[in-house]
Amino acid sequence: MTIVEFVKENIDQNSHSLPFKTHIRSLEKGKVITDYGQIETSVYFVQSGILTTSIRYREEDRILDFHFEGAFCGAYTSLLSKEPSDIRVTCYTACQVEIVDYAELQEVYRSSLLANQIGRVATEKLFFDRVTREKELLTLTAEERYQSLMDKNPILVQKIAVKDLAKYLGVRPESLSRIRKS
Amino acid sequence: MTIVEFVKENIDQNSHSLPFKTHIRSLEKGKVITDYGQIETSVYFVQSGILTTSIRYREEDRILDFHFEGAFCGAYTSLLSKEPSDIRVTCYTACQVEIVDYAELQEVYRSSLLANQIGRVATEKLFFDRVTREKELLTLTAEERYQSLMDKNPILVQKIAVKDLAKYLGVRPESLSRIRKS
Repeated sequence: MTIVEFVKENIDQNSHSLPFKTHIRSLEKGKVITDYGQIETSVYFVQSGILTTSIRYREEDRILDFHFEGAFCGAYTSLLSKEPSDIRVTCYTACQVEIVDYAELQEVYRSSLLANQIGRVATEKLFFDRVTREKELLTLTAEERYQSLMDKNPILVQKIAVKDLAKYLGVRPESLSRIRKS
Repeated sequence: MTIVEFVKENIDQNSHSLPFKTHIRSLEKGKVITDYGQIETSVYFVQSGILTTSIRYREEDRILDFHFEGAFCGAYTSLLSKEPSDIRVTCYTACQVEIVDYAELQEVYRSSLLANQIGRVATEKLFFDRVTREKELLTLTAEERYQSLMDKNPILVQKIAVKDLAKYLGVRPESLSRIRKS
């Protein structure tokens, strides 16, 4: 999926071009797109593959989320605050990403209706995902959270290693194997 | 603070009116604005006072967040998904709120640059707050999270009862009294 296809699906089905430039990069598995301490300058759209965002806590990386095809992703709090990032964005699999330069986007935001519609809808989805994750952490069991991730993208979830999935769900790998069987 | 003032501060200092109607209501302490199971139809802007959002978990209300003057608030996931709300929005103190009808807002979103700019910036702030809260839960101690809340609005935090603040921070009330003294 491309950003133009995202716009057709979510904003205006007659839209055929974007009010800002994008460029596409193919990235290897394991490639760090934005590292801890960097100031984020771009927004990334996952055309294919899986990105992860993680945070450092007591010498250990904690997985905040997996981002599948059709999702916007990035070190957004660094982007919005212009502070060094406390999250890392990594290609969990080989990925194709569509990249938007944030400085250009901010210029375009001054006058483009479509750019603001895209920014608004993309941010609404990001917000929705974060709130859902927060509620799930507060109220669902690990089994239910695994099911919720499966509902998002059952094929791609199969590509996630048990140890990483366990980290995301906050359970021991042995418990996850039991969950997957049931 | 009004929504017009929010726009002047965050988007366009020459803006003097909004592209949608709003109405203002004064609400008593304890008033439930949106309850569990309701479908949300409006967005609320806190002109004065404190709103809270909470979620039901094992017969108990958990405080998701406190929303101070100048913040947008509401049962957003219900608004975006049109599903019954799993959160409750309550006036923690007497409040004055400015209310935007979401059906009208969606109409206006089709053609108004300013409406989309307001929606985008408001959602960016909501997103930023949720991510910050998630990171704080993962990486900060209760003392540090108390300090972070104090940094947001030291005067209003004084109005929050120790038992509710403890619930929000996830500590026992006795631990919080110790934190407050230090």
